[in-house]
Amino acid sequence: MPPRTTRVVCLVRRPDGEPALGDFAVEERPLAPLSEGQLLVRNLYMSVDPSMRGRLESTEKHYTHNFAPGSPLDGRALGVVVESRCPTVPPGTFLRHQLGWREWAVLDAADTDAAGRIDPQLAPLPTWLGLLGQTGFTAYVGLTRIAEVRPGDTVFVSAAAGAVGSAAGQFARLLGAERVIGTAGGPDKCALLVKEFGYDAAADYRAEPVRDALARLAPDGIDVYFDNVGGEQLAAALHALRTGGRVALCGMMSQFGGERRSTDINQLIQAVLKRLTLRGFIVRDHDDLRPEFESRVADWLRSGRITARETVTDGLDSAAGALLALLDGGNVGKMLVRLADDPYSRA
Amino acid sequence: MPPRTTRVVCLVRRPDGEPALGDFAVEERPLAPLSEGQLLVRNLYMSVDPSMRGRLESTEKHYTHNFAPGSPLDGRALGVVVESRCPTVPPGTFLRHQLGWREWAVLDAADTDAAGRIDPQLAPLPTWLGLLGQTGFTAYVGLTRIAEVRPGDTVFVSAAAGAVGSAAGQFARLLGAERVIGTAGGPDKCALLVKEFGYDAAADYRAEPVRDALARLAPDGIDVYFDNVGGEQLAAALHALRTGGRVALCGMMSQFGGERRSTDINQLIQAVLKRLTLRGFIVRDHDDLRPEFESRVADWLRSGRITARETVTDGLDSAAGALLALLDGGNVGKMLVRLADDPYSRA
Repeated sequence: MPPRTTRVVCLVRRPDGEPALGDFAVEERPLAPLSEGQLLVRNLYMSVDPSMRGRLESTEKHYTHNFAPGSPLDGRALGVVVESRCPTVPPGTFLRHQLGWREWAVLDAADTDAAGRIDPQLAPLPTWLGLLGQTGFTAYVGLTRIAEVRPGDTVFVSAAAGAVGSAAGQFARLLGAERVIGTAGGPDKCALLVKEFGYDAAADYRAEPVRDALARLAPDGIDVYFDNVGGEQLAAALHALRTGGRVALCGMMSQFGGERRSTDINQLIQAVLKRLTLRGFIVRDHDDLRPEFESRVADWLRSGRITARETVTDGLDSAAGALLALLDGGNVGKMLVRLADDPYSRA
Repeated sequence: MPPRTTRVVCLVRRPDGEPALGDFAVEERPLAPLSEGQLLVRNLYMSVDPSMRGRLESTEKHYTHNFAPGSPLDGRALGVVVESRCPTVPPGTFLRHQLGWREWAVLDAADTDAAGRIDPQLAPLPTWLGLLGQTGFTAYVGLTRIAEVRPGDTVFVSAAAGAVGSAAGQFARLLGAERVIGTAGGPDKCALLVKEFGYDAAADYRAEPVRDALARLAPDGIDVYFDNVGGEQLAAALHALRTGGRVALCGMMSQFGGERRSTDINQLIQAVLKRLTLRGFIVRDHDDLRPEFESRVADWLRSGRITARETVTDGLDSAAGALLALLDGGNVGKMLVRLADDPYSRA
């Protein structure tokens, strides 16, 4: 018998400053019976994303809805169809969708188009939410279309041990970058950057001003900055960029939370002096690049040229804590919550 | 007999904070006898440019040399050849060159290529340093290539009564902008924006926060921001820009001087949320656009669709004061110094 209810993570109240565990609660919610064209999906993994931070606020939204107190969160997830009222999507189909932060989801099959289905034989399930998912695609779009990485470039990536950053470093090298530099918090992560994610050099932003680190690690300057944090690191990058340099703006985590360090916007004078281009982007504007991305990254994965790395917690009750850990920099690679046994797990 | 010396404006010392008259002095310097291929030019007008402010500092330079204490300043000027040792550039030729801030200049004819020569019958001499000079070209490149103004756009220009700003407003309208909004300091300049420079609306940045003014004058947002000042106005524009908006970064005067207001660089989060593109530029990278620019602007001038407006002071002794006045916002349109009688003056 399919379940009549599902456990979901709800927002209890908007955070006052830093989010806290008490801002979230796991609740039981009814699952509507399937209508024609609908699917009942057992979620196996869900993605924990930095972009959720902004959606907890009440401020103006530009590309997605904000979460509402009293309502369930949502986000990218991967599940398997258990019951189907759509003949073209039979039970047993694995697919990605937007109704994470819950154990079960009722979806319109029309919302899970061809792009939603995945082949679990091709890559481990977590990878479909990481390197082969929005995360990897964000790194790919930012490097190829926004920052236009070219062979020979020196590329700097902030939050380089994170989900997007660990993908960006590896992709940058395969796209021809001559030198790839990353920042992360703490010596362990910095060691990982070089050992696992193919960075040539890493700097610990907690131990040294990033501007000094860049002067040391890229004395001739950088060509591309993939920005995941904004703030001081963006200002440092503006100084290090060479004439004609390019910045992909993708995150700005530093703009949230208590320690929000104010950095002078007038640093942008560097953009005039050095003819820099800074471009913000939202990955879903670039879906035309997706086939190219999937084919190249699948090939890189198959040939062992890139490493998929995830930080996984277990069970819906761990989800809010996983989000807080992510916002505190407690993850390496993609942050995921496992919501049920993974039939393809090699562990 | 040609002169053996010329009066020049020298930098006495680097300014300590705001530049002051005592930082400059008019001195007499020898003029070398002409070598083969050289020209002796009587300067008639010289350009006073905001970009000189940065060249007074000792900080790193990216696209031109900084001024040195004890040495003459230089800058765009327009003069007439009085003596020539180059057969293809006879006496009587009018040309633009880089050796302003002096009454006479000895130039290599090779440095005054075809682009340097001007036809004084086509437009008044001051216009060749203003709307038809680097000033107008800067506005044109910024609007067409950097910000890619399209028909129907709402365009916002800061320092809109200045040389570049008064050109940008007029050009934007002729390039198809539906609504053009400018900021300036004080009610008189704001009135001029609407009366003379074709702006639909003007806001006095001294009287009202620019963010409030934009909310009032462009309630649906703006598509393009032509930035001449940086700082608070840039931050306000980032808020007002619509999704996909474009910013041409061209100046950032606010980054100099005592009242340098720090504005949080994290405002750039707007660039992510709204997929904005910010591009700094230096006009001389875009010389391929010059023929198109000259033909269109000459046509607009001939047909009376744009207004050339200059603020002119007289004599080399007035030059340092003209620069200080410019930096203090004391000019409307192009700031020039007249160094000798203008044979084509209609006054």
